[in-house]
Amino acid sequence: MFSRHSHLVVPKQTSVLNFPATMSPPSTAIVYDQHGPPDTVTRITKIPPVEMNENEVCVKMLAAPINPADINRIEGVYLVLPPTPAIAGWEGVGEIHSVGSAVMSLSPGDLVIHAAYLSGTWQTYVVEDQSLWYKIDKNTPIEYAATVSVNPLSALRMLEDFVALKPGDTIVQNGATSIVGQCVIQLARIRGIHSINIIRDKPDSDKIKEKLIKLGATKVFTESELEVKGVTNLLGDIPKPSLGLNCIGGKAANMVVKFLKQGGTMVTYGGMSKKPITISTTYFIFKDISLKGFLLQEKYLDEAQYRCSIDHLLALVRAGILQYEMEMVPFKDFHIALEKAMGKQGSQRKQILKF
Amino acid sequence: MFSRHSHLVVPKQTSVLNFPATMSPPSTAIVYDQHGPPDTVTRITKIPPVEMNENEVCVKMLAAPINPADINRIEGVYLVLPPTPAIAGWEGVGEIHSVGSAVMSLSPGDLVIHAAYLSGTWQTYVVEDQSLWYKIDKNTPIEYAATVSVNPLSALRMLEDFVALKPGDTIVQNGATSIVGQCVIQLARIRGIHSINIIRDKPDSDKIKEKLIKLGATKVFTESELEVKGVTNLLGDIPKPSLGLNCIGGKAANMVVKFLKQGGTMVTYGGMSKKPITISTTYFIFKDISLKGFLLQEKYLDEAQYRCSIDHLLALVRAGILQYEMEMVPFKDFHIALEKAMGKQGSQRKQILKF
Repeated sequence: MFSRHSHLVVPKQTSVLNFPATMSPPSTAIVYDQHGPPDTVTRITKIPPVEMNENEVCVKMLAAPINPADINRIEGVYLVLPPTPAIAGWEGVGEIHSVGSAVMSLSPGDLVIHAAYLSGTWQTYVVEDQSLWYKIDKNTPIEYAATVSVNPLSALRMLEDFVALKPGDTIVQNGATSIVGQCVIQLARIRGIHSINIIRDKPDSDKIKEKLIKLGATKVFTESELEVKGVTNLLGDIPKPSLGLNCIGGKAANMVVKFLKQGGTMVTYGGMSKKPITISTTYFIFKDISLKGFLLQEKYLDEAQYRCSIDHLLALVRAGILQYEMEMVPFKDFHIALEKAMGKQGSQRKQILKF
Repeated sequence: MFSRHSHLVVPKQTSVLNFPATMSPPSTAIVYDQHGPPDTVTRITKIPPVEMNENEVCVKMLAAPINPADINRIEGVYLVLPPTPAIAGWEGVGEIHSVGSAVMSLSPGDLVIHAAYLSGTWQTYVVEDQSLWYKIDKNTPIEYAATVSVNPLSALRMLEDFVALKPGDTIVQNGATSIVGQCVIQLARIRGIHSINIIRDKPDSDKIKEKLIKLGATKVFTESELEVKGVTNLLGDIPKPSLGLNCIGGKAANMVVKFLKQGGTMVTYGGMSKKPITISTTYFIFKDISLKGFLLQEKYLDEAQYRCSIDHLLALVRAGILQYEMEMVPFKDFHIALEKAMGKQGSQRKQILKF
C-alpha cells in the first residue's frame, strides 16, 4: 500500500493528531515496484485518501513532463534514488485543492509548481508539505509551468553561474536542439550573447539550422562541418567563446573545447553519447581550459534565487520570448507518452502528461 | 652575432645614450640556432662585451638548472618560444657584477634570482633590466636559489590558488617523486595537510615510499596498488582529497580523480605520459569534479605575491624543512648534464649548471 507521500510506504499514524484532519481525494498514480525498463516496471494504480497534517497541502495535478532523468531514476541509473516502491515524476504543475490548518501562504485554486526534487508528481492528487510548492502567476501556460524548473532553469543557471558573461560575449554548445539547448539560445540572445551551436548531421540539418537561427542562434554547425583545422576561423568577427556547454560527451565535447578561448570553461550537464571526454593535457596547461559539471540540485531549492529564476523564466514565457515545443498527452495514454519519451518511436517532442 | 639580451639579435644602438656607458665582461653562453634535439642544436659560444643602459644590471651567473621546460623550448614544443637564435636557460641565480647609473635597489655583490621567464640564464654574464632580477638572502644555498622559482613555486601556488585548504584536509598527486611532487609533500606537511602520493611501479618502490614518507607523505601507493575497486577505502580515517595534482595524464590522471571527494578539483600541470585525460561525464555531473590547468606565467611575476612566495620558500630551505636532491655540474660539462637531464642516462637528479 502506498502513501500519497511519494516514496513513503508506511501509512501515517493519524490517531495522535490533535487538530481537525483533512482527507485528500483518492489519487491515481504511476508507480514502480523495482528499478528496470520504465515501460515494463511502471503501472497505473489507485491510492486511497490520506489524512493531511496542518502544514500540508493537497495539490490537484494539472500537468507533469516525462524528463530523461525520470526515466533514468526508474531505471535505477541516477545519483539519488528514492527507495522502491515509488511514485514516479519529479516535476509538474498543479492547483491547490485543499490546505492544512497552519498553511497561510497558499489557498485553494492557486497555481503551484513542485519546487522540490522529490518524486511523486505523476499522480492526480499529491499531499506534501507546503514548503515543497511554489505559487506562480495563473496566466502561465500550464505546459511551461510543468517544465520550467528543470530544463529552462538548467539553461539559465549554466549561463549565470560559471562565467561572468557580458553582452557581445560568446558561448558554444552541443546538443543545441534539446530543450535546454533551445533555452540557452534564447536566454543568450536576450542578454546580447552570441551562441555557437553544434548539431548532429541529419538529412534535415538545414531545416534545423533555420529553426535555431530563428530562435536567436548566432551560428549553427553540423558536426561534419567542424571536421576542419582551426574551427575558430569559422567564427569570423564573433569573439571566441568563454563558456561551452556539453550534454553529449565523446567527440562532440572536443568540438566544444576546440572553440573555447584561452581560459575558457566547458560545463558538462549530460552524456547522451555515453562516451567519456578525452582531452589533451596541453589544453589544461597551455590553454588554461577548465572543465566543470552541472546538476540541478537542492542548492537551487528553497532559495530566493530559485524563486527569482523561476519568476524570470515564466515572465519570458508569458512575454512570448522563451518557447519550445511540447506535446500534451492525456494521463490515460501514459504508456504511449512513455514510449515516445524513451525514443521508441523516433525523435519526438517533449511529452507532457495532462491529468 | 648575439646580444647579451637573451633572444634579441639586433645590437643595441649606443651612440644616442647620453649617460656614461658601462661595459659588461665578455660572456660564454649556450645558444641554439634553430629548434631541434637539444644535444644536437645547442653549442657553447663566446659573446663580446655589451654596453649597459642606465636601468640595466650585469649579473655574474652562479648556477642555473636544466628544467624540462628548457628542453621543450629548445625542441620548439612549448607555448611561448623566443625567436632563434637564442640563449637557453630560463631560471638561475647570480651575483650582481655591475649596475647602470639609475639602478638604486641592487648593488654589486647582491645575490639575485632571475625573476622573469625570459631566456638567457645559461651564460656566464647576463645584462638585463634591473626589474628582471630579485635580490635574495645571501645565506641561501645557491642550488636552491637557482631552482626555487619554477618547481617549488609551482608546488606552492598549486596548493594555494585552487582550493581553500585547511589543516586536516587532504590532497592527492601523481608524479610524487618529481621535485614538484616532493615540494608538494613538504609544503602540505608544513600546513598540516595530508598528502596521498601515487608513484610508478619500480623494483625499488619500497625505498621510494620510505623516502617520501620521511619527507612527510601521509600515504604512498604504487599505480598497481590502486588497481582495486573503491580506492578511497585505502584512505582509512583520512578525509577524501579536495585537491588533486596531475603531471602525467592517461591512467595516472584517473587515479587522482578516483580519490577526489565530491566537488573536488584536479589541476593538471604536466603530461609526462603524453597521453590525454579521459574522464566519464558522470564525474562532472554527479561528482561535481572540476578539471583545471596550471602553468607558471607572467601573472606570477613582478607582483608582491611572487616575491612573498619566493621569500617564504627560501626561508623554508634555509630552515632545512624544504629540500630535494640536485647535482651540481661544472658549466664546461654542459653536454653531460644535458644528456642526463634528457633522461639518456636513466633516472638522474636535477642537473644544475655551476658557472
